Amino acid sequence: MGRDSYDEQLDRLTGVLATMSRGASAAIRGASVALLDVDRGAAEAVLVGDAVLDGQRADVEALIPQVLVRHQPVASDLRLVLCALRIASDLERMGDLAVHVAKIVLMRHPVGVVPEPAVPLMTAMADAAARIADKTAVVLATRDRLDAMQLGLDDDEVDAAQERLLSMLVSAWPYGVESAIDLALVGRYYERYADHAVNVARQVVYLVTGTIRL
Amino acid sequence: MGRDSYDEQLDRLTGVLATMSRGASAAIRGASVALLDVDRGAAEAVLVGDAVLDGQRADVEALIPQVLVRHQPVASDLRLVLCALRIASDLERMGDLAVHVAKIVLMRHPVGVVPEPAVPLMTAMADAAARIADKTAVVLATRDRLDAMQLGLDDDEVDAAQERLLSMLVSAWPYGVESAIDLALVGRYYERYADHAVNVARQVVYLVTGTIRL
Repeated sequence: MGRDSYDEQLDRLTGVLATMSRGASAAIRGASVALLDVDRGAAEAVLVGDAVLDGQRADVEALIPQVLVRHQPVASDLRLVLCALRIASDLERMGDLAVHVAKIVLMRHPVGVVPEPAVPLMTAMADAAARIADKTAVVLATRDRLDAMQLGLDDDEVDAAQERLLSMLVSAWPYGVESAIDLALVGRYYERYADHAVNVARQVVYLVTGTIRL
Repeated sequence: MGRDSYDEQLDRLTGVLATMSRGASAAIRGASVALLDVDRGAAEAVLVGDAVLDGQRADVEALIPQVLVRHQPVASDLRLVLCALRIASDLERMGDLAVHVAKIVLMRHPVGVVPEPAVPLMTAMADAAARIADKTAVVLATRDRLDAMQLGLDDDEVDAAQERLLSMLVSAWPYGVESAIDLALVGRYYERYADHAVNVARQVVYLVTGTIRL
């Protein structure tokens, strides 16, 4: 690996990030299946997949000093290498948040975490998070600024769903405090998942434009 | 700035991290005062202080490419520079989490967020978080591995307090679902604050030893 050319190392770096992005996407989808279908196997698979994401982040972190020392990149190449660190960190964290959702499912199993009245909202949140995950993968591949901005809209949708969820929980929630806390935390995990996806997109925009606003 | 010597740039980098660490410490202390004394001014000060932390993180991120390009550090110096990125990110995030606590206080003001029975636990959590914040500053200054490991113990205390808080909320909580969700989220923010502090310590240990276990 240490003897790879610069382009090979950069390709390897972006390749690992693309793989991590697919892993983070699979993680939240799996967590949503676990949550909405009360599916223990799906929850356990999220935990297994997370170890893979952790390893890939470590790969990125091992690769970056090598690239820096061997090839001393400057300007946009240096930006790419430093952004890769943050992107890997965000993607790994997205996996962690999917794990948090999966763990709540496992903790309550065989009882479901989402009572009937909350199903539509949680489904909307899960769908928006899955869309965000897919767009993150697209943005990483295309580095398209408009794709990246699109992602912000889905993030707004997740935030709005979390607001509505909290309103529902505090207005008249007949399923008890434990259930309300579980759902508030689950909503929070989806919200943070989406935030990290937006961070990834922000880094990509920074790569392309040199400015960080989205 | 660009004309500084290597040592001057490294000193500047570690200086900003030390300042950020004090800022993150002030943030959680302020948030705890806001929370436990129902102090609106303290909450607002946390929001103001957070903008400073954000700016300092941006300083670190601007400084690092300069150091890399000008001085092409290798081995432990390169480790230091790359770790600084992660440490700045963790410290900034610690500020964000203090802001989340402060915002819940502002949202409910003049009503307090912590009903009487939860005061001892929240006080314990706030104290442990403040101790963690201080030790993070010490670890950054001394780079002492034992200091860093100490920090893990305080983190365990925060986690245990959060567990006890959740148990209290779900067993018999006469203050309603909204109050329970507020406290569960506040506890979660303290927990995450402590996690990020442990991450900082982990990075410091990595700097010293080259291995990341704590």
